[in-house]
Amino acid sequence: METIHQAFERRHTQAGWRGEGRRFGEGAAILVGDLAFVYADRLLADAPPSARAVFAELRVELNVGQYLDLLGAAKGEPSRAAARRICRLKSGKYTVERPLHLGAALAGRFDGLASTLSAYGLPLGEAFQLRDDLLGAFGDRAVTGKPVGEDLRDGKATLLYAIAAERAHGAAGQLLQRLGDPELSDADIADLQTVFVDTGASDEVEGVIEGLMTEALAALDDAPIEEHARDALADLARYVAGRDR
Amino acid sequence: METIHQAFERRHTQAGWRGEGRRFGEGAAILVGDLAFVYADRLLADAPPSARAVFAELRVELNVGQYLDLLGAAKGEPSRAAARRICRLKSGKYTVERPLHLGAALAGRFDGLASTLSAYGLPLGEAFQLRDDLLGAFGDRAVTGKPVGEDLRDGKATLLYAIAAERAHGAAGQLLQRLGDPELSDADIADLQTVFVDTGASDEVEGVIEGLMTEALAALDDAPIEEHARDALADLARYVAGRDR
Repeated sequence: METIHQAFERRHTQAGWRGEGRRFGEGAAILVGDLAFVYADRLLADAPPSARAVFAELRVELNVGQYLDLLGAAKGEPSRAAARRICRLKSGKYTVERPLHLGAALAGRFDGLASTLSAYGLPLGEAFQLRDDLLGAFGDRAVTGKPVGEDLRDGKATLLYAIAAERAHGAAGQLLQRLGDPELSDADIADLQTVFVDTGASDEVEGVIEGLMTEALAALDDAPIEEHARDALADLARYVAGRDR
Repeated sequence: METIHQAFERRHTQAGWRGEGRRFGEGAAILVGDLAFVYADRLLADAPPSARAVFAELRVELNVGQYLDLLGAAKGEPSRAAARRICRLKSGKYTVERPLHLGAALAGRFDGLASTLSAYGLPLGEAFQLRDDLLGAFGDRAVTGKPVGEDLRDGKATLLYAIAAERAHGAAGQLLQRLGDPELSDADIADLQTVFVDTGASDEVEGVIEGLMTEALAALDDAPIEEHARDALADLARYVAGRDR
């Protein structure tokens, strides 16, 4: 699927307008994002204050997480700790925990459910991001909607990359140094995938996802929620952290 | 003064980080803008609904105005009507009218004052943008904080440009065709300034500003506001549309 910036870039190119199509597309996409921001606010205008407070926190955390992500890619010195902090802020909170908090606040049950939903949502959100990183490195464009290898050409400071960088030597180590190079060829991407497998990095990330899933599901056991909610959250966990989404 | 994207680009360059400094700076600036968006919302969280509604409208109008601005620069076919529509949406409403509405709403006087403040604020906001366009074409970096000629290298579809394009012929017309070319030299910029003066475009824009100012000030005459407010708004009008801000 075409992103907003690609759609506006294409429109610019097809019409033969002046200036760089990429900049036009990015400028338009920023404005569309800002409009979405405004409409999201309006949707929440009549929500209880607790819901609006959660939404405000979510947006602050997301922006901080995105900045750490940008910074990590720019610095190019991946570490497990930094990679996991990005996972927690950018996805753990934004993708799973905070939306659950928002739902609870809208239902007037924030105080009773917030800690349970955090115990479930934070590890699951981190698992979601780690799965996303694996799909970004190995994934199929038809499934992910992103070009294969895009994360590698962006040099994202993922846990996968941090583990592989600890372990790779020689040619494999040199290849990892090239992460973040937009000129990486499809053959380089295939070689990098081999490095992730041969160093055991992808298996280790799978193991971490598994552990986080177990943690998330365990948090549901004693949760003060109805049975059908427990079942729905368990299904959601398997979907979010699974290989097939 | 350094903008946010310049500051982050510089940080990237000085640290010798990976990737393009410009993209890093722009990415960070988008996130800083989004954070400002969130904090602005939080400031208004306890404001009356009428104030929040004005703020939501302001943001929609601003984004639409900005998009028309981008589009106008990309299309490069300036017209008086399009230039003035951008002025009204991007600045008339956002810079003057809506902030006045917001203040009135916060003071609980929106219903009584909205139409007066529009009659004053819309023409003044348009005058503000036309002044800004003149400063962008002729201005002094020390005064405006923007590089001289930046608007010309961006090819903004201003009224100044639309009028000059109607009247210029030969070499002057060809030079105007180059508006929007980031490679315009300082000598080209100086030649363009001469075209704006010689075609009478800059004088005509001054005249339009003058007319809008008169309109804005006239709206204050019968306004249902206290004398000191009338005086303050009259001072503001002269400052905003004036040459010395």
